[in-house]
Amino acid sequence: MVPRRRGKSGHWQMAPHHRLFLIARHLESDVPLNTPFSVGRDEAYQSQPAPITSRSQGTQTIQEPEQKTNEEEEEEENSLPKMASHPALMIPGPIEVGDEVSQAMTYHAESHVGKPFVNIFGETLEMVRKLFQATDKATQPFVITGSGTLGWDQVATNLLEAGDQVLVLHTGYFADSFADCLETYGAKVTQLKAPIGERPKPDEIEKALGENSYRMLTVTHTDTSTGVLSDIKAITALVRKVSPSTLVVVDGVCSVGCEEIQFTDWDIDCVLTASQKALGCPTGLSILMVSDRAMQRFHSRKEKPASYYASWKNWLPIMQNYEARKPSYFATPSTQLVRALHASLTNILGRPLQERFAQHRDASAKVKAAVKEVGLKQLAADPNLQANGMTAFYLPEGITPPDVLPKFLEKHDLVLAGGLHKQIATKYLRIGHMGVSVTDQKRSDIGNVVKAVKEVLGK
Amino acid sequence: MVPRRRGKSGHWQMAPHHRLFLIARHLESDVPLNTPFSVGRDEAYQSQPAPITSRSQGTQTIQEPEQKTNEEEEEEENSLPKMASHPALMIPGPIEVGDEVSQAMTYHAESHVGKPFVNIFGETLEMVRKLFQATDKATQPFVITGSGTLGWDQVATNLLEAGDQVLVLHTGYFADSFADCLETYGAKVTQLKAPIGERPKPDEIEKALGENSYRMLTVTHTDTSTGVLSDIKAITALVRKVSPSTLVVVDGVCSVGCEEIQFTDWDIDCVLTASQKALGCPTGLSILMVSDRAMQRFHSRKEKPASYYASWKNWLPIMQNYEARKPSYFATPSTQLVRALHASLTNILGRPLQERFAQHRDASAKVKAAVKEVGLKQLAADPNLQANGMTAFYLPEGITPPDVLPKFLEKHDLVLAGGLHKQIATKYLRIGHMGVSVTDQKRSDIGNVVKAVKEVLGK
Repeated sequence: MVPRRRGKSGHWQMAPHHRLFLIARHLESDVPLNTPFSVGRDEAYQSQPAPITSRSQGTQTIQEPEQKTNEEEEEEENSLPKMASHPALMIPGPIEVGDEVSQAMTYHAESHVGKPFVNIFGETLEMVRKLFQATDKATQPFVITGSGTLGWDQVATNLLEAGDQVLVLHTGYFADSFADCLETYGAKVTQLKAPIGERPKPDEIEKALGENSYRMLTVTHTDTSTGVLSDIKAITALVRKVSPSTLVVVDGVCSVGCEEIQFTDWDIDCVLTASQKALGCPTGLSILMVSDRAMQRFHSRKEKPASYYASWKNWLPIMQNYEARKPSYFATPSTQLVRALHASLTNILGRPLQERFAQHRDASAKVKAAVKEVGLKQLAADPNLQANGMTAFYLPEGITPPDVLPKFLEKHDLVLAGGLHKQIATKYLRIGHMGVSVTDQKRSDIGNVVKAVKEVLGK
Repeated sequence: MVPRRRGKSGHWQMAPHHRLFLIARHLESDVPLNTPFSVGRDEAYQSQPAPITSRSQGTQTIQEPEQKTNEEEEEEENSLPKMASHPALMIPGPIEVGDEVSQAMTYHAESHVGKPFVNIFGETLEMVRKLFQATDKATQPFVITGSGTLGWDQVATNLLEAGDQVLVLHTGYFADSFADCLETYGAKVTQLKAPIGERPKPDEIEKALGENSYRMLTVTHTDTSTGVLSDIKAITALVRKVSPSTLVVVDGVCSVGCEEIQFTDWDIDCVLTASQKALGCPTGLSILMVSDRAMQRFHSRKEKPASYYASWKNWLPIMQNYEARKPSYFATPSTQLVRALHASLTNILGRPLQERFAQHRDASAKVKAAVKEVGLKQLAADPNLQANGMTAFYLPEGITPPDVLPKFLEKHDLVLAGGLHKQIATKYLRIGHMGVSVTDQKRSDIGNVVKAVKEVLGK
């Protein structure tokens, strides 16, 4: 849990009657189906941003400051400022951000074509390669201002032409949306669906691949609506065996940074992700890695991409120039968001990736054990199908997210998420366990989630 | 100028020989045509974000801290932290951001569908209406994660269908790019061009409108490549008179927040802008205002929009829900950027808009007077055609931007911009004068620019 501030100017203090009002309102609230439900303390009457405290005070009483020397004063200035206390955001994205990332967001305004930023962007693109374990130099990274959804448009408009056949492996809500995007650009989509909590089986995929000449197969690595994990290595190997020219495109929005992805060794063609999940940044960057095979497919298009903002015709020279440390302009990048990603990747790549993935598996196992201990079942019943960055589990019969989310918030200072899968949205909860909440040993977020699950949902 | 930090841990201190090296490198640098040129101190070897100081120290010597009471300590915590000293960014966007905006960027991670953020987004959309002086309730604002360029895609994919005729009024680089975007979506574009520094004349526009059945006319309010200002009120009135069903679309990326726009009274159909210019936010939000007439045109489309991420079919319910304070999801918004826009709009709307526009006219007049005093000519020779948020002016014969930009940086702590218009990119400079640099009376940015222009470019 993030230390909760108790000072007399603390933003999060609330009178008991106000808490009751909030809980009551949540109970009354009319939650539309398929709208992700979440809670947060109402700040309508204090909507100015909370002040940044110069150092975290946790729940300690403020001490009388001692006389300081100039040297001590300067040292303190150079230590990172901490964010104000707040409930820990344990949803499957966005997630908690580290202090270095938060600080990068306040970096002063700078020219997007000036040398300092050109260097930062170039380094960021190089680090994105390492993050994806993309060792083939012909592989191309893209970092573009936008939500993760923009990655779907990039795939659709650059790697497909109208009429191309695509096989979409369906493990939840995000396959439907991705398919909708692909069809918008004129693709002919076939969805291979599995029951909720399951995933298409290898023999089903092999059979489907044999029934049509698919230009592309898409798969959601972790479907955020169900917590179902797909086996990217096995799927890619299968495609290479039975339909080698089919491009393998992975929606890694909820997996990059917490699940293993060996882009080059597994021979993947494209992974798209976003900044605000396991990469631990604020939302706002669409991040892609594209194989040489896919880039060749792009270069040999018959028609120009149908989108302008999502077109690699416009972005490819920009990415290549920035990585070569040359200023370049198509659309103004968000210098602060790129600096935030730079800070996050510097942190992530400062330790072995295998250690990071193991930490996420461990944290996931703890949360899943707590869910099991209170007698609840995950949407993904088979442990091999359970994602490591999130847990989605059914509530007891008759209980809905608005019944319990306020308890997690008020009693445990935790923000969790309700359901997202259309058919069962009011029947389950989702917990995110990614990024600094998992890897920063000074944080107690995972322990708090385990404790809260047992207290709120235990018998 | 932003106070330059002199402390022993200051990031911006440089040994004289290093400065000479930097200047020399700028002189040698190979500036590609049509690549905006700018400078900034090289941070390749100290690429971590600069620390935020807890309060601005300007050039003062640090005082011995006195003993403080608990009350004083708490008061200090609530005062806004200031950004580290840095060169003032006086390019035509991005621009300097205020402390409240910068602080909003560090707001802690929060759910995009939680009540606090839903309220902030709803308030932001309401403030966007006020910013545009859009008093017709049927007018629709959009705030979507992306660069300003995404606004062009939104216009093209939602308000046009393949084959529609569009008249593009050309006052610089951005008309060519906007036309390129419109053509990508299948529009038939006719550009009405004026010589560099001029704009199409009313009789030319009237004649052009009579020659074709135009579905849309587009005009760049301030073309950032030339500093040419268009007369939106007059153009809209002309269109309503001679071709009333033609939609009037204004590219206001470099004008919204510093030039008068009366959306409803002038009967404009769409203005698109971005967060990082006169709105004084970091880059990353595409902001649009759309008239009831244009929304009706959108609703009566024959074909679905060709883009997914830029489609109002996906975004309209989201914007309407957020403004009605209901959680809603299509693609995850950047909560920090929306909070930054909220902070900026709160500041902007805290004073009369007319006062703000007058401040920008005054600052612009000062910069333009300095340019005239040193005997240099603006691209826009006619004062009625000169934008108030920026100044673009020719350098003396034989002098290029890399010759003088390092002097502005090294001697005056100012970042200015080189040319952007393809034909003359190496022959002129651009200075931005928007936002807090103009409106914050505690800042001396405009005075510093005036002084620097005289010193660097005077005889």
